[in-house]
Amino acid sequence: MRILYHLPLSPYCRKVRLALAEKRIPFELRVERVWERRDEFLALNPAGTVPVLVEENGLAIADSYAICEYLDEAYPDISLFGRTLAERAEVRRLVSWFDTKFGEEVTRNLIWERHLKRPLGLGNPDGAAIRAGYANLKPHMEVIGWLAESRPWLAGQQLSLADFAAAAHLSTLDYANDVDWTLNGAARDWYSRIKSRPAFRGLLQDRISGLSPPSHYADLDF
Amino acid sequence: MRILYHLPLSPYCRKVRLALAEKRIPFELRVERVWERRDEFLALNPAGTVPVLVEENGLAIADSYAICEYLDEAYPDISLFGRTLAERAEVRRLVSWFDTKFGEEVTRNLIWERHLKRPLGLGNPDGAAIRAGYANLKPHMEVIGWLAESRPWLAGQQLSLADFAAAAHLSTLDYANDVDWTLNGAARDWYSRIKSRPAFRGLLQDRISGLSPPSHYADLDF
Repeated sequence: MRILYHLPLSPYCRKVRLALAEKRIPFELRVERVWERRDEFLALNPAGTVPVLVEENGLAIADSYAICEYLDEAYPDISLFGRTLAERAEVRRLVSWFDTKFGEEVTRNLIWERHLKRPLGLGNPDGAAIRAGYANLKPHMEVIGWLAESRPWLAGQQLSLADFAAAAHLSTLDYANDVDWTLNGAARDWYSRIKSRPAFRGLLQDRISGLSPPSHYADLDF
Repeated sequence: MRILYHLPLSPYCRKVRLALAEKRIPFELRVERVWERRDEFLALNPAGTVPVLVEENGLAIADSYAICEYLDEAYPDISLFGRTLAERAEVRRLVSWFDTKFGEEVTRNLIWERHLKRPLGLGNPDGAAIRAGYANLKPHMEVIGWLAESRPWLAGQQLSLADFAAAAHLSTLDYANDVDWTLNGAARDWYSRIKSRPAFRGLLQDRISGLSPPSHYADLDF
């Protein structure tokens, strides 16, 4: 069976899980405690990060960018990148926006500082970073709301990896009850739409020892 | 004419310049002072970052990841991503390694802290970050040296975007005289090979007001 090495609170792993599920590619999840730096895992990915996808033929693909591009080339029936060059450029621009800008300005400041830093023995949470994370969420929700009001899906006419990248970050934050859903109605409506897709079911079933999600996390009519 | 909005000390812009030149796609460079946040530029890329490529038909592509993938799809004659799925996964893994891991651990600590932060009025250089940048350069040069000794080019048999991503970061650091080339002979030999390619000429002619490169910067027999 195809294996995805992951961590449940990694938005990059969640993006890959959503892409695999939307493309109906079966896979088995395996939690990798990357901080243990297992030799066998470092042989698959010297960077020591998740996600890493290992195909049944043994091909290992490391890095969420490489995995998502690979999936679209290897399993092109359901494309998540759009058809025209312009559509594909827009999907990738937004994937990069969410994975770098949103990731650095919001997700890292909240998830890393609030929920991972201390349990991993890497120091106390930085209050200023946490406040910045909450402050940054507001303009980012406005961007998502603006895109969702301008277009059927975030990157255009079709559901794409841009939606999954955004939803991966938001679902990670939502699991930790870090999203104020009253900030933007259009963003909330878009998230409700994507959360209802069958591809999302796996994420909504996640339960992490020591950190329970709020009751609305798996509620499709939140 | 096709326009690339760039900054000369951005490794992400340099990667795109190398890809364009290697694929023999003519373009005009235009410096974008991103900190001025020009409305016309923000309309091209709301993230406000370079590089942004604007094609003659008006199509604007923002983000170095989106641009490089676009170039390979729009101008496939000279591919920089390899042929097989495995080759392409390896190229992308390494592009991500250099653009994120090397970028965060080395380039940002040195170029940003030493040469950009103060001139842009964003505070004094952080000595600890600079020391970390120099310390991190050593293992990264060993990785490059190891790859260069194991394979004809960093990602495999063919020159690829992985070589250009690595060379983009190193050439930025080298312009600022931040590379100790005695650290690894194999890495130095590989850099000498890629630096000699015609695609590199534009980078070697860069001259930035107020920051002169060391004499070996443009020397092909350094």
